[in-house]
Amino acid sequence: MAPSFALDGGEDFNRVAPPPSVTGRFASGYSDVQNSRIFHTLPLPSVLKSPFKIVDGPQSSAAGNPDEIAKLFPNLFGQPSAVLVPSGSDTVLPNQKLKIGVVLSGGQAPGGHNVISGIFDYLQDRAKGSILYGFRGGPAGIMKCKYIELTSDFIHPYRNQGGFDMIRSGRDKIETPEQFKQAEETVNKLDLDGLVVIGGDDSNTNACLLAEYFRSKDVKTSVAGCPKTIDGDLKCREVPTSFGFDTACKIYAEMIGNVMIDACSTGKYYHFVRLMGRAASHITLECALQTHPNITIIGEEVAAKKLTLKNVTDYIVDIISKRAEANYNYGVILIPEGLIDFIPEVQHLISELNEILAHDTVDEGELWKKKLTDQSLKLFDFLPQTIQEQLMLERDPHGNVQVAKIETEKMFIQMVETELEKRKQEGTYKGGFKGQSHFFGYEGRCGLPTNFDSTYCYALGYGAGALLQSGKTGLISSVGNLCAPVEEWTVGGTALTSLMDVERRHGKFKPVIKKAMVELEEAPFKKFASLRDEWALKNCYISPGPIQFTGPGSDAISHTLLLELGAHA
Amino acid sequence: MAPSFALDGGEDFNRVAPPPSVTGRFASGYSDVQNSRIFHTLPLPSVLKSPFKIVDGPQSSAAGNPDEIAKLFPNLFGQPSAVLVPSGSDTVLPNQKLKIGVVLSGGQAPGGHNVISGIFDYLQDRAKGSILYGFRGGPAGIMKCKYIELTSDFIHPYRNQGGFDMIRSGRDKIETPEQFKQAEETVNKLDLDGLVVIGGDDSNTNACLLAEYFRSKDVKTSVAGCPKTIDGDLKCREVPTSFGFDTACKIYAEMIGNVMIDACSTGKYYHFVRLMGRAASHITLECALQTHPNITIIGEEVAAKKLTLKNVTDYIVDIISKRAEANYNYGVILIPEGLIDFIPEVQHLISELNEILAHDTVDEGELWKKKLTDQSLKLFDFLPQTIQEQLMLERDPHGNVQVAKIETEKMFIQMVETELEKRKQEGTYKGGFKGQSHFFGYEGRCGLPTNFDSTYCYALGYGAGALLQSGKTGLISSVGNLCAPVEEWTVGGTALTSLMDVERRHGKFKPVIKKAMVELEEAPFKKFASLRDEWALKNCYISPGPIQFTGPGSDAISHTLLLELGAHA
Repeated sequence: MAPSFALDGGEDFNRVAPPPSVTGRFASGYSDVQNSRIFHTLPLPSVLKSPFKIVDGPQSSAAGNPDEIAKLFPNLFGQPSAVLVPSGSDTVLPNQKLKIGVVLSGGQAPGGHNVISGIFDYLQDRAKGSILYGFRGGPAGIMKCKYIELTSDFIHPYRNQGGFDMIRSGRDKIETPEQFKQAEETVNKLDLDGLVVIGGDDSNTNACLLAEYFRSKDVKTSVAGCPKTIDGDLKCREVPTSFGFDTACKIYAEMIGNVMIDACSTGKYYHFVRLMGRAASHITLECALQTHPNITIIGEEVAAKKLTLKNVTDYIVDIISKRAEANYNYGVILIPEGLIDFIPEVQHLISELNEILAHDTVDEGELWKKKLTDQSLKLFDFLPQTIQEQLMLERDPHGNVQVAKIETEKMFIQMVETELEKRKQEGTYKGGFKGQSHFFGYEGRCGLPTNFDSTYCYALGYGAGALLQSGKTGLISSVGNLCAPVEEWTVGGTALTSLMDVERRHGKFKPVIKKAMVELEEAPFKKFASLRDEWALKNCYISPGPIQFTGPGSDAISHTLLLELGAHA
Repeated sequence: MAPSFALDGGEDFNRVAPPPSVTGRFASGYSDVQNSRIFHTLPLPSVLKSPFKIVDGPQSSAAGNPDEIAKLFPNLFGQPSAVLVPSGSDTVLPNQKLKIGVVLSGGQAPGGHNVISGIFDYLQDRAKGSILYGFRGGPAGIMKCKYIELTSDFIHPYRNQGGFDMIRSGRDKIETPEQFKQAEETVNKLDLDGLVVIGGDDSNTNACLLAEYFRSKDVKTSVAGCPKTIDGDLKCREVPTSFGFDTACKIYAEMIGNVMIDACSTGKYYHFVRLMGRAASHITLECALQTHPNITIIGEEVAAKKLTLKNVTDYIVDIISKRAEANYNYGVILIPEGLIDFIPEVQHLISELNEILAHDTVDEGELWKKKLTDQSLKLFDFLPQTIQEQLMLERDPHGNVQVAKIETEKMFIQMVETELEKRKQEGTYKGGFKGQSHFFGYEGRCGLPTNFDSTYCYALGYGAGALLQSGKTGLISSVGNLCAPVEEWTVGGTALTSLMDVERRHGKFKPVIKKAMVELEEAPFKKFASLRDEWALKNCYISPGPIQFTGPGSDAISHTLLLELGAHA
């Protein structure tokens, strides 16, 4: 059962990777750590280690608007989820040779390579003689039929390694009738029995549409999804987390922990750290739970409480003032990159600016400003000059203000500085303030996957192989019970239609897997909320240190997951 | 001999740190990794594990202008360096009780806490009943007599931990006659037998001046220096490296390796990474040797070849163009933070700007530009608009242009973009270019020290204890033979005067320990230079991964050190 490359009995540090070959990854070979990870033996959930069968659950519905989902997915709607259970016999699944394709879709997340090796090893173990194709460069590879046959030698150097460079990813979608037709031609040409789509919410929605299309056309290709995104916003009861979140958060938390120690060593800097994670604040929340910063802004809370930029600034400034009284003129502040989108007044200002900039010339006398509503004018004047300039000058090809280019962490440093200066004049603040800005993003998308992400991804891939072999389509690979030892993890598939709701776009209903946002009533946020006042005024810093692959902490899973699964208080 | 806190037989992962006490570090306790590091047993060089004696070497001279150094240090000049050698008897050094002070000076570097625990354990092991005082907040703590007595319990939570927060550091210098007098009063008041100054080139120069002053005043306090700086610019034959360099470079290299994998996974970004390191490019060079980026700019080479900003830009653009021909529209580029100081034309422009801005108003018609020399005008016009604005607008309290605020990595992105656009128009470049900027700095100063830095610092501190006990003054703790197993490391002290030269400042000779810059004729640069063309066009990326404390790679030392010590080709 153990894949042939693996060493029995743990790691053997004297064994080295074979010299790089033509199919190798980079011309210079590997670092010691990369190298040792190749030979890291992955545990499998015990259900995958012996003969198993697939058992269907009850009929499923949809996350919302089931009638509309039923119309959009007439062939798939209502199908049951599936779970793998041990079976006495070894021949439950026919040992036919399969042809399977796999594609990576969207932004990188640590562990993607392991999903692919999981599928590959499943086929080796359970369907000898099967072929695995990797579509190159994301969904475009399916449409253009650009692929490579993945062999044992080819996959070897990518085992337990970060990145998506084995077959690369892409951001194209299969949307138009022509594109669906192209996909159909490709899977027919390659005679595919199955296709695994590794991606986020959009990509898995797309996977489901493809599954529906193939079913409607009597194409034999089954489609399985896999939950990928460092942002952590693709999850539900059956899919407790998306892969990559664990590694990315630990990489950011390492860096945050380091600047915390720096802050309390110099005693004179406030580090403003903006964290990747798109709209949702999961990464920021998880990093906060791991490191205990003095201030953490959660976008979903800002939205729920309808806070203004001034409110958020005041919240920060109040804590900095209180800390100054205790002679702490330093600290660490976490800001999610999606924050600006959660503040309605900012959205109003931007749309007004877009309107004005499209039709008026911006005059020196600032007469244009009179066209802003009172609220927007007030906000505009509150913004630091550099941000004002950025809003006015840097626009995209359509002439729109580029919100994404705003460096929120720098904006807050300036606003906080101004506000503190005001309080200093008033005599209500006597501290010293120096801001340092950081953005942690790209560093975390392609790190070496943690033991958790390595193992989780391998099980996701291995399980996807099982789903496809049994002819299941439109399911997302689902590995659960993640707080238990790996042997006890559950493996199965969840009907993608059951995760869906509809959105109205351009007058039509579009199916969507709703992004999972930080829920203010759930355990991770509540735990954070119960502790943040203490973290604000005391120094409760925790520095997680670099990710370890052996020894203490190496098998830890995220606080978010532990709290959501109720495994600790 | 082993310090009493250490566990025999390696790490015991089940043992946990004591609950945080009033003297503990942070209110929330520790992460698993921080915790396990506390109990990490440090190996000592074998000479420190048995009875030893101190043997003097030959008379020393100075790094330059020995006559001037002799005048500046009449009491210390010429004194021999010292080396510890095994002795048969246990009673070579009198087992008197000592009072020792220790101070951290300047920017943080991983390992500082271990120097302190090394001194402490030396006193426990070899001079029972001694007292160790920690001066708080750097040299100001000496002048103001702000100190704390360091006990076993107090030191415990800082063992093998990053940061300088145990007693904090500071950037003050003991310079004026009054300040020397204050220091004298403090050491007399505390009846100090010795003082250890942990710092960079300036701080060690200051330590030597203090040693000279105490000697001239017949104050009994001996002074020992310790080589600290992540920048790696304090080193010589006897002091092969400064502590912290190893950890900082490995942290940056982890991040660089991650963005490399990101670059080749998305295939569309050039990551421009600016690296901390002040004037010298050691950190950048070491990170290049660890990771093999496509382009690395070394400040010292730019200066030696008298390159202009346009030359450097063209060098980058040429490689990007060649890579585009091979369909590689991505890559990683390392830029040392000190680069701008190495480009003479930039220095000229800035001094001209300072002059003009001090006396003239900057008119809309740009008449002021006519006051620039031709060369400076050409350079100014070559700079991206945002950098031009930054130069004109952001000035320090003295009205001077703030060079340090220029984000060199962003400047290069813009200049490269402009140049590539030009080549596209000319038809000589057909690729796509998107730049991503990064600055890696504060993340590396306070990380958990690597095994190397932990062990090296402990030996530096332990050795400093020995130097002081034997009454040596004006020596810098020197641990050598670092490529050999720890048992074979040499331990001793080097006359600080022997590292000095003089500089003329305000009409007076000032002693200085000269910053060690990257030498273009030495092994680390030569190795880099012999490989960089291959790295430029092929993808030879190496991703070192996170620092490991056990297993493969955990005991690796820096490439710079290995190459300088000639331990590998």
